[in-house]
Amino acid sequence: MVYTDIATRTWDHGWRLDPIVRSLLDTDFYKLLMLQLIWRRHRETHATFALINRTHGVRLAEVIDEAELRAQLDHARGLRFSKKELIWLAGNSFYGEARMFAPDFLAWLADFRLPEYELRTVDGQFELHFDGPWMCTTMWEIPALAIVNELRARAALRGKGRFTLDVLYARAKAKLWEKVEQLQQLPELALSDFGTRRRHGFLWQRWCVEALKEGLGKRFIGTSNVLLAMDHDLEAIGTNAHELPMVAAALATDDAALAQAPYQVLDEWRQAYGGNLLIALPDAFGTAAFLRDAPEWVADWTGFRPDSAPPIEAGERIIAWWQAHGRDPREKLLIFSDGMDTDSIAATYRHFQGRVRMSFGWGTNLTNDFRGCDPDGATGLEPISLVCKVVSADGRPAVKLSDNPAKATGTPEEIARYLRVFGDEARAAVPVAV
Amino acid sequence: MVYTDIATRTWDHGWRLDPIVRSLLDTDFYKLLMLQLIWRRHRETHATFALINRTHGVRLAEVIDEAELRAQLDHARGLRFSKKELIWLAGNSFYGEARMFAPDFLAWLADFRLPEYELRTVDGQFELHFDGPWMCTTMWEIPALAIVNELRARAALRGKGRFTLDVLYARAKAKLWEKVEQLQQLPELALSDFGTRRRHGFLWQRWCVEALKEGLGKRFIGTSNVLLAMDHDLEAIGTNAHELPMVAAALATDDAALAQAPYQVLDEWRQAYGGNLLIALPDAFGTAAFLRDAPEWVADWTGFRPDSAPPIEAGERIIAWWQAHGRDPREKLLIFSDGMDTDSIAATYRHFQGRVRMSFGWGTNLTNDFRGCDPDGATGLEPISLVCKVVSADGRPAVKLSDNPAKATGTPEEIARYLRVFGDEARAAVPVAV
Repeated sequence: MVYTDIATRTWDHGWRLDPIVRSLLDTDFYKLLMLQLIWRRHRETHATFALINRTHGVRLAEVIDEAELRAQLDHARGLRFSKKELIWLAGNSFYGEARMFAPDFLAWLADFRLPEYELRTVDGQFELHFDGPWMCTTMWEIPALAIVNELRARAALRGKGRFTLDVLYARAKAKLWEKVEQLQQLPELALSDFGTRRRHGFLWQRWCVEALKEGLGKRFIGTSNVLLAMDHDLEAIGTNAHELPMVAAALATDDAALAQAPYQVLDEWRQAYGGNLLIALPDAFGTAAFLRDAPEWVADWTGFRPDSAPPIEAGERIIAWWQAHGRDPREKLLIFSDGMDTDSIAATYRHFQGRVRMSFGWGTNLTNDFRGCDPDGATGLEPISLVCKVVSADGRPAVKLSDNPAKATGTPEEIARYLRVFGDEARAAVPVAV
Repeated sequence: MVYTDIATRTWDHGWRLDPIVRSLLDTDFYKLLMLQLIWRRHRETHATFALINRTHGVRLAEVIDEAELRAQLDHARGLRFSKKELIWLAGNSFYGEARMFAPDFLAWLADFRLPEYELRTVDGQFELHFDGPWMCTTMWEIPALAIVNELRARAALRGKGRFTLDVLYARAKAKLWEKVEQLQQLPELALSDFGTRRRHGFLWQRWCVEALKEGLGKRFIGTSNVLLAMDHDLEAIGTNAHELPMVAAALATDDAALAQAPYQVLDEWRQAYGGNLLIALPDAFGTAAFLRDAPEWVADWTGFRPDSAPPIEAGERIIAWWQAHGRDPREKLLIFSDGMDTDSIAATYRHFQGRVRMSFGWGTNLTNDFRGCDPDGATGLEPISLVCKVVSADGRPAVKLSDNPAKATGTPEEIARYLRVFGDEARAAVPVAV
């Protein structure tokens, strides 16, 4: 007997839109931690975020219909945190800490909505800007990326037959499970999902997270996606991002203040959070410069998240710095999250095993690796390097140097000024994979 | 929104049984062609069929619950040909012929039901016999095999998690699609599904057939499964099987009659059917003997289905025979169906290309290849060599010699007598893969 649920079929007919983002919790956990800090200490700061497609060869506006993009962005703007979500944020513990989010912050969050956006098409690419109070615009980063990436995937899949889709997802599942089996070889692995921003789609990310939970057991320590963490009783993972030092640097009134900006941000952070949240991102303006000028108390922090230098090189540099400051690296934590995949995870794990605590944030190659899966052999599902970065704060241009010049953002003049202040030591261009 | 169809869930709760065979058309087409012949010309003959598990290492009765097996066999006994099915058999054309099945035969079929069975467990194996009029017992072969194979698969899958099952089927789909892509390299391929008897399960066979239809286009010429042929508007494929010469040989009253039995069967067949249905199975008592003693008119037949010798060796022998009889092999057809998989299909195709017409019947390695697919690494899904053979006719023992002694059936005394009559030329033991 073929049973068709007529009510569901009829409901499906009437869909105006299949929403990509259906909850404001469908974002990365670090956004909420940073948001609380921004809301408490930088309520007056304005910040503009912009979508940046580093994969120039993919002309997004020729792939994605602008009206569809608007419809998805508008749908996200209609979202509010639900009562259940706010209760969970208030009642759940994060990184072993209860009451991570203060009642006054949560009360403000209850009325939060995503601010307006500016969208136009220029030369085959989207110019998508979010302009307004930092504490509002910061929240666009993840939904904007998730929406654009999933619209691109949907465009690549449009017109494919029911059967082709079936084979495509079967291959993707088989492929991911091969990766899980590779990772099972690493007994002390600690790995989390960092793939929200680059995901193929929400349902696929959820499948990937379920795969890690099933296949890696306690080696899978959680997900950056707050909604998935809530729905699946997983740990929400994440600390802070480049936007904090970038905004602080943009607002610096002179070169001396600029040089101090990265540490001023960490000082604010340690007043707000403790323990395993004391993870520094060293590469906003070059890791070598950061370590060279860091105050002694930075060595007391739990660890670092090198995010743009090759992982083994970055880890060795940081370990040497800890040792130079008399700290035992075996008590410290390195979090690797830059374009990782199973091979680089295994190589890094084996290289540092026993010398330092490690965890891995796995992004694009977890939630968006469909390479070789399309029976039609098309390439529309190849992941692209898409970011949503702060480009100015209170009208002043924001800059990221990064350890990898290919990941730098900002105007050429400002980049030149930052290079004068921080130096260019040990920066090296590496192709940005994803 | 999670939508649960409560009515369906409630219906599912109440299942007493998930039936494996749900239609009498869920059988191989050759059974119906042979049945019409048996019904018309051998109505009084009795024949006993028996399940034979050639994979002795798998103790089926320790894997499958006897009560479950009885429940499935009983369910199959409750089936009748439905009105729609009989109308389709009457109105559809097969091998380009309208009215393949006569009205009086179809009228008899309307009341057909599978006869009783005898089942007991002996030393970890099932003894499953079907005893009665040949025109009734012959119809048990395919459902009995499908039921035992699927029950074994279900036992192997029992207790696996929802996710493990998901990965397992994803891998199996990806694996089959790799095979489809290999076969796409053979432009003139003609391939059909022969996998009903050895299938993992009905739904999986259906998926495999859909995969071939989608991936091979006109290279996929049809399926032996009559139900799938009807439901998917495919050609039903098949001609005749070893049981015809085996019963004729069993009934032979002396050695001279025994030596003529294989040709007597073909003579009956050519009176009933024509064209592409004139395919001889040469190996029941050894291909060399069959060709040596064949009357001249056998060389007028459309082709042969060598079913137990290595395909290239068997094909060369038959081609040489056609040439010796002045026939052009390029007008003849060879059907290869013995344990084929993509490599042997490609090798055979390339070997004979341009020299003879070919088609391939793909069985176990199409519909039951889960090797390497189980995330738990268990082997319960490895296919086994299970057959359901005629063992006696009118109380006289039936024998198959085969080109491969490993596939022979019958008592040692009778096999010795048959070897005296037919000789042992060119028979060679090859491990029976599946």
